[in-house]
Amino acid sequence: MVDILHKVGIKAPEAEVYAALTTTDGLTRWWTTDTRGEGDAPGGVVQFRFSVADGGGFDMKVLELDPAGRVLWEVVDGPEEWIGTQVDWRLSPAGEYTDVLFAHRGWREPVEFMHHCSTKWAVYLMSLKSLVETGKGAPDPHDVKIDSWN
Amino acid sequence: MVDILHKVGIKAPEAEVYAALTTTDGLTRWWTTDTRGEGDAPGGVVQFRFSVADGGGFDMKVLELDPAGRVLWEVVDGPEEWIGTQVDWRLSPAGEYTDVLFAHRGWREPVEFMHHCSTKWAVYLMSLKSLVETGKGAPDPHDVKIDSWN
Repeated sequence: MVDILHKVGIKAPEAEVYAALTTTDGLTRWWTTDTRGEGDAPGGVVQFRFSVADGGGFDMKVLELDPAGRVLWEVVDGPEEWIGTQVDWRLSPAGEYTDVLFAHRGWREPVEFMHHCSTKWAVYLMSLKSLVETGKGAPDPHDVKIDSWN
Repeated sequence: MVDILHKVGIKAPEAEVYAALTTTDGLTRWWTTDTRGEGDAPGGVVQFRFSVADGGGFDMKVLELDPAGRVLWEVVDGPEEWIGTQVDWRLSPAGEYTDVLFAHRGWREPVEFMHHCSTKWAVYLMSLKSLVETGKGAPDPHDVKIDSWN
């Protein structure tokens, strides 16, 4: 098993970062504008859909939610490599900042697609940071493209 | 051992990407403006220095160089967590693009600093992409800051 790991510091209260990860309004403004479902209750499923030609995306089941600093999703539908992996968010206050420790855990192999997703997650984390700090994120389809595909 | 993995596609010939990784001029324009040494010969050592208060940085020994698509560095000085790790670049043509497979291998533990460096590497890879595609990168001290520190 291999993991994608990232960290950003967001200059905002923890509650604002938590809201961006657990409400449809928040999620549509930094990740995919086509986001539906229930991100604010354990057991809920959130559908994220991208604008690329195949209309692909991910369904995430909410496993844990704690306003004190934890959001945990499990991928229940999407690309074969993603199914069964977990996306883990840990938030903690750090002065004027909220530190965000991110992990996308449980990849079976370090395939090229994992390399791509690692870079792309960083780009979306910067979108999350921008959204919370300035009110403006860069969700798909307005995101920064990192290669010929996405 | 844990690894940081990334991938970007750069819309340019492979030789241009290779030059940005192996010449002091190239390296200063996407990573650290204060870069010295010999990146264009195996056995050479390149010093990268950041503008943050402690003036820290990394010394990389060039282990492999192949214009057909490989650059491999080993960290010989810098933060304790980096020493002995390897930074591995593999380039390959993909239509109008050059695919860049990046790995920073050999971290002993997935510490918070590794999470930070993973995100920061992605930001610098986007700087590399921008430099090669447009002529303008975002090296330190002009880079995108991802937290209160850097």
